[in-house]
Amino acid sequence: MLKRYLLAPGPTPVPPDVLLAMAAPIIHHRSADFLPVLDAAKKGLQWLYQTRNDVLILCSTGTGGMVGSVNNFFNKGDKVLVINGGKFGERWTKICQAYGLDVEEIVVEWGYAVKPSLVEEKLKKNRDIKGVFVQASETSTGVYHDIQALGSVVKQFDDTLFIVDAISALVAHDLKADAWAIDIMVGGSQKGVMLPPGLAFVSVSEKAWAKAETSTMPKFYFNFKKERENLAKNQTNFTSPVTLIIGLNESLKMLQAEGLEKVFRRHEWLANATRKAVQAIGLELYPRESPSNAVTAIMAPQGIDGQAVYKNLREKYGITAAGGQDKAKGKIFRIAHLGYADRFDVITAIAGIEMVLKGMGHPVKLGAGVAAAQELLMA
Amino acid sequence: MLKRYLLAPGPTPVPPDVLLAMAAPIIHHRSADFLPVLDAAKKGLQWLYQTRNDVLILCSTGTGGMVGSVNNFFNKGDKVLVINGGKFGERWTKICQAYGLDVEEIVVEWGYAVKPSLVEEKLKKNRDIKGVFVQASETSTGVYHDIQALGSVVKQFDDTLFIVDAISALVAHDLKADAWAIDIMVGGSQKGVMLPPGLAFVSVSEKAWAKAETSTMPKFYFNFKKERENLAKNQTNFTSPVTLIIGLNESLKMLQAEGLEKVFRRHEWLANATRKAVQAIGLELYPRESPSNAVTAIMAPQGIDGQAVYKNLREKYGITAAGGQDKAKGKIFRIAHLGYADRFDVITAIAGIEMVLKGMGHPVKLGAGVAAAQELLMA
Repeated sequence: MLKRYLLAPGPTPVPPDVLLAMAAPIIHHRSADFLPVLDAAKKGLQWLYQTRNDVLILCSTGTGGMVGSVNNFFNKGDKVLVINGGKFGERWTKICQAYGLDVEEIVVEWGYAVKPSLVEEKLKKNRDIKGVFVQASETSTGVYHDIQALGSVVKQFDDTLFIVDAISALVAHDLKADAWAIDIMVGGSQKGVMLPPGLAFVSVSEKAWAKAETSTMPKFYFNFKKERENLAKNQTNFTSPVTLIIGLNESLKMLQAEGLEKVFRRHEWLANATRKAVQAIGLELYPRESPSNAVTAIMAPQGIDGQAVYKNLREKYGITAAGGQDKAKGKIFRIAHLGYADRFDVITAIAGIEMVLKGMGHPVKLGAGVAAAQELLMA
Repeated sequence: MLKRYLLAPGPTPVPPDVLLAMAAPIIHHRSADFLPVLDAAKKGLQWLYQTRNDVLILCSTGTGGMVGSVNNFFNKGDKVLVINGGKFGERWTKICQAYGLDVEEIVVEWGYAVKPSLVEEKLKKNRDIKGVFVQASETSTGVYHDIQALGSVVKQFDDTLFIVDAISALVAHDLKADAWAIDIMVGGSQKGVMLPPGLAFVSVSEKAWAKAETSTMPKFYFNFKKERENLAKNQTNFTSPVTLIIGLNESLKMLQAEGLEKVFRRHEWLANATRKAVQAIGLELYPRESPSNAVTAIMAPQGIDGQAVYKNLREKYGITAAGGQDKAKGKIFRIAHLGYADRFDVITAIAGIEMVLKGMGHPVKLGAGVAAAQELLMA
């Protein structure tokens, strides 16, 4: 028997109350049963996004929300700026290119956060940049980009939209869509929102909606204007994923009961305990600055394959964490503390890492990292 | 938010696959749907009990199984011997007395196991003792009584039944009903069998069935002869708790996949790691000998209230363990490693205990107990 622990940066564990809510019988999405359900979800998401803007609910993965953020607001040949500091930055570029946009990149070395001054410089020199794309938390490197600072840069440019992939950061980081002038912010269900995969959320500002009026790119599934019209009637454009939206309301209820400030502080606390514990084991964090509160990326020690750490955690100890992607593959492994996460998830992860590394012949003092985490988690 | 961990000696956590199986729609207990279900359960329990005897399935808590073990096999005024080494030993006495039996007790000091030679002496001196009642694992003290040795003592006496309350020991300890001449062995669903509360299991030997022929005590709900007749037809005497029996088959499937020897070794391994960890924290085990593999009873350190440890574990850290009962109340707290239990349950328990004790001002080196557990759990 091997008990399983899900500590990956998505999908994340779904809380018992949410699982129960989703076990209810299916209701019809065009019936009166569904209207209050979607109404609650829509208001709850506005609360979570800290916005008065519409937050669309799409039946897709987070990537669907990213695609819709491109094909609804731009035109072929538009110049856009992508901040590419990892695998998901790269994805913005790929999506924009797939739709024929003229992509300018700021390539950020993996493990580093973008300098907002660099973005400002670029925008000043290229007045025709129509949008700036970035990740809040770049899951592949475990780095958080300073969304507040970037928002105040982009907002100076009337013709430029600020588009944030907040898929893994939502819930783990304080992201104020309105106060920070985020025009489009994309979330996904299987991360901090503690749901199964299957939903994307996208907030859209009035500045962005104005752009949508002149966008002529082909759109059918991800047609945000249609979604907006439906949302006003507490509907979605196509068949609503009723089960996931019922689960969403239960998740939102849990988050609201905890309170937004406390939710952010919990994530910061768990992330901080994880970082301190990892360093107490003698390991190095992969981010050189601005570590994410959603996921901690850890350097595998000299001579140890990061993928083997991931594999041993999973096969020997039942812990599903994550390895590295692309150029970080083999060099790192990653532990999430995202969504339905509490202190003994950190303890389990750290104890497991200690045991795996020791088992692989790396000199580890068992319990050293755990003790560092305990110290902070007693609070 | 406080994530919850159930580490009490029953109810214990129910595995996901079992929860899922129990979420299936209700079938009718007198329909053909149910016959193969009960047939599988009955055979599975025989495998778990290591017996060819019938294992009755009752819709009751374990105590119902204990009551039936009295009212089906004895008559008012019969002399019986109860081994009373804790709260559940006491329960045998109370049940026997409620039915008018003449109870002789061997009172065992809490924290100790009964000496089989004492039982032999008693039986030799009192040839009219019709039954010997004992717990395999006495949950209140965390002591395991040597069932094999006791079985070989009682079997010498043709007119004496050997009745074992195996409610908390089943699955955690190797208990061979046939090879060890256990006439009646009682189990319950909410312990090692990893189910919700609601089922009792009772194996009955031919020697015991013969006694049932002459028992004239009033019986209606716990009428074992009627249950036996029904069991032969893959039925139960009254409405069958179909959901729990469907869950039972799923649990048995998990245990069979693991293999009986491995199941016992896992419990021994987790219990041993818990004991070593507790001692590495500088705490004392409550049992002076023969600790149970189902639950570890731990002495609260000087000046620390055991109930407060229990309360802090639960309220501050979300861990539901157990306090002490009766004369051990305040002196001890208890941690189970029973049923759906794996190494990070032990790690969580030990980390939690360290944090609670340190938080209560007891000098604890954080991580010391965890490291001792890790050392063993790397195996």
